[in-house]
Amino acid sequence: MHFIAPREKLNTLVQITQKAVAQRSPMPLLSCLHFESKDNMLFLSSTDLEFGIRCTMPVTTIISGATAIPAKYVTSLINRLPDIDINIKCDISSNTTTFIYGDSEVVLNGYPADEFPIFPSFPNKPSLILQQDKFKNMIKHVIFAVSTEEHRPVFTGVNIRVNQNGILSMVATDTRRLALCEVHLDMPPDEIINIIVPGKTLNELFKILESVDDSLYIYVTENKVFFVIDNICLMSRLIAGQFPDYRIVVPENYICEVRTSVSKLLDAAERASLLVNTKRNVFNINFKPNGMMIYFYTETGRIREELEGNFSGDPLDVGFNVRFFIDVLKSINSEEVIIKLSGQDSPSLFKPVGDDRYFSILVPAVSQG
Amino acid sequence: MHFIAPREKLNTLVQITQKAVAQRSPMPLLSCLHFESKDNMLFLSSTDLEFGIRCTMPVTTIISGATAIPAKYVTSLINRLPDIDINIKCDISSNTTTFIYGDSEVVLNGYPADEFPIFPSFPNKPSLILQQDKFKNMIKHVIFAVSTEEHRPVFTGVNIRVNQNGILSMVATDTRRLALCEVHLDMPPDEIINIIVPGKTLNELFKILESVDDSLYIYVTENKVFFVIDNICLMSRLIAGQFPDYRIVVPENYICEVRTSVSKLLDAAERASLLVNTKRNVFNINFKPNGMMIYFYTETGRIREELEGNFSGDPLDVGFNVRFFIDVLKSINSEEVIIKLSGQDSPSLFKPVGDDRYFSILVPAVSQG
Repeated sequence: MHFIAPREKLNTLVQITQKAVAQRSPMPLLSCLHFESKDNMLFLSSTDLEFGIRCTMPVTTIISGATAIPAKYVTSLINRLPDIDINIKCDISSNTTTFIYGDSEVVLNGYPADEFPIFPSFPNKPSLILQQDKFKNMIKHVIFAVSTEEHRPVFTGVNIRVNQNGILSMVATDTRRLALCEVHLDMPPDEIINIIVPGKTLNELFKILESVDDSLYIYVTENKVFFVIDNICLMSRLIAGQFPDYRIVVPENYICEVRTSVSKLLDAAERASLLVNTKRNVFNINFKPNGMMIYFYTETGRIREELEGNFSGDPLDVGFNVRFFIDVLKSINSEEVIIKLSGQDSPSLFKPVGDDRYFSILVPAVSQG
Repeated sequence: MHFIAPREKLNTLVQITQKAVAQRSPMPLLSCLHFESKDNMLFLSSTDLEFGIRCTMPVTTIISGATAIPAKYVTSLINRLPDIDINIKCDISSNTTTFIYGDSEVVLNGYPADEFPIFPSFPNKPSLILQQDKFKNMIKHVIFAVSTEEHRPVFTGVNIRVNQNGILSMVATDTRRLALCEVHLDMPPDEIINIIVPGKTLNELFKILESVDDSLYIYVTENKVFFVIDNICLMSRLIAGQFPDYRIVVPENYICEVRTSVSKLLDAAERASLLVNTKRNVFNINFKPNGMMIYFYTETGRIREELEGNFSGDPLDVGFNVRFFIDVLKSINSEEVIIKLSGQDSPSLFKPVGDDRYFSILVPAVSQG
């Protein structure tokens, strides 16, 4: 393999591709970036077998070929090379790759490329096409509710569906909280989509997606999903299983509701979070005429926060996990939120004012001690 | 104690004062900030007994008094309070302090103030007055050479001297490298100064000093030094002992010298540093007509960097610890550096071009394997 690439563009793609490198794998090859150059193109890829990224860019191919180089070293090196054209040459007999910049060179030891997992190919026709910023915004709204507990795999993913009415929905839940976001598609696909995508995949996709209305192409196969933006492709396995129906946890009747400022409520909750310790992480909110009062105490001290709000219904005192409460508020873009309470042990609903496409549900917690 | 203070200014001073809080002390009091209010002033202080900070600001004192509050909680709290006047009230009987902001309040548990170490007072007359930015720049030039090995205390400090000619000098060394910076004082003090100040103190002072020509007042006592800027006072014990005479390590004769770009040399050295591992951390530089060549190899790979420079003398090949070499270059503000070599085992001299007040010395290292 021998090709010449401009360092700046190469660096951008190397920094993206390395995000799928296996963090702690017994297979040294999986800690590598795979470089392949042919027909004046470079194909850069990495995978931990469940998740992978492949980027392409035009280069000057002198000799076609491929190699695998430890990601840690090659990403740091390319990050520090001068902004000129870099000559990258692999010696197959020794598995070493030489990076030549001006009169200087670095040689990195690598591995034979032929044992590197083949990046799976995706169907010709995308299952779904939509704007990047729309999808990015949906991820932001729901990703916090994904479970990190591996023993219940479906809850570590986000359920992405397109129904027969052309509504795209994302739902995530760890059973104690749930977030749902829906958008109406301008170009609905021919088929119904119903997949569970790992939270980790969507987190990485979130970082790569830009807040622009360029198109994101989504390809769904039986057990994989591919997200394609320009010259970047994210591949992820799908999570097998049946995602629970969120509608059964949405309460039908409410005891009271309050409409208040998201930023003021968030500030108050974050002050309360300073007192949280391993024993006590549930604060109480007293919903009452003209607003609400947060109160909480631990060994460190105590807090009482008075907040104004438009209240209706009967007063109610509810406990919430402080961290979960903050997560819900941080996922909201609107200035105001409506919180609807259905009881001390029943789910409460958080709806941003002026955004009907999104809500989240938080199950109250029992305050300790 | 009861006083009213504007949150923004209070926050600035709390964030500065907490830097002297003991990190891991068996005495819970030393993990506290000490608050004292009297005569419409607030005195905030913290100390780990060797190092301390005291800040003052005008407030509205309602009841004079003092208390000690765990720094971790009070700094986070004040950082998150709204930007309004805060009422701060201490209940001496329970050692609790209430922070009242609008209709809300937080109560933090604390400790009795009377057991908190008294902040030492400094002499009436400063030993030295100079511009903040001048002193900050001197610290930058020498601090990297301070030793972190506690078993030789004098090398963990910086030797600050003022001689009879009104020259202020700072010298630091860990025996393998040395840095010296000198300035001529416009207002030399009456007495000779010769003290060893802990590197940690100067690191904190560096962060607090602004790049402005406002005055820094330095007060020296038998075993302490005080640095005073406006309403902030840093106190530090001095390190006892005799600092070695740096002049004996400055070589008198050189084999060769090269003048080259600091940024290009630094980029090359940082690329080489990517290959460093626990076994091999010494690279070689071949000083030769028209420049220099860095070369180095480890299990990860190898590097050869060619750099241009104005060379004179006889060619020489010298090994340097990569990290130490980078530290020296980072301490230089100038665009170019002159490196003078006195042999493979003899100290080399680094002088920034156009800045006669500063140099550093690096003892070559033996390359491994």
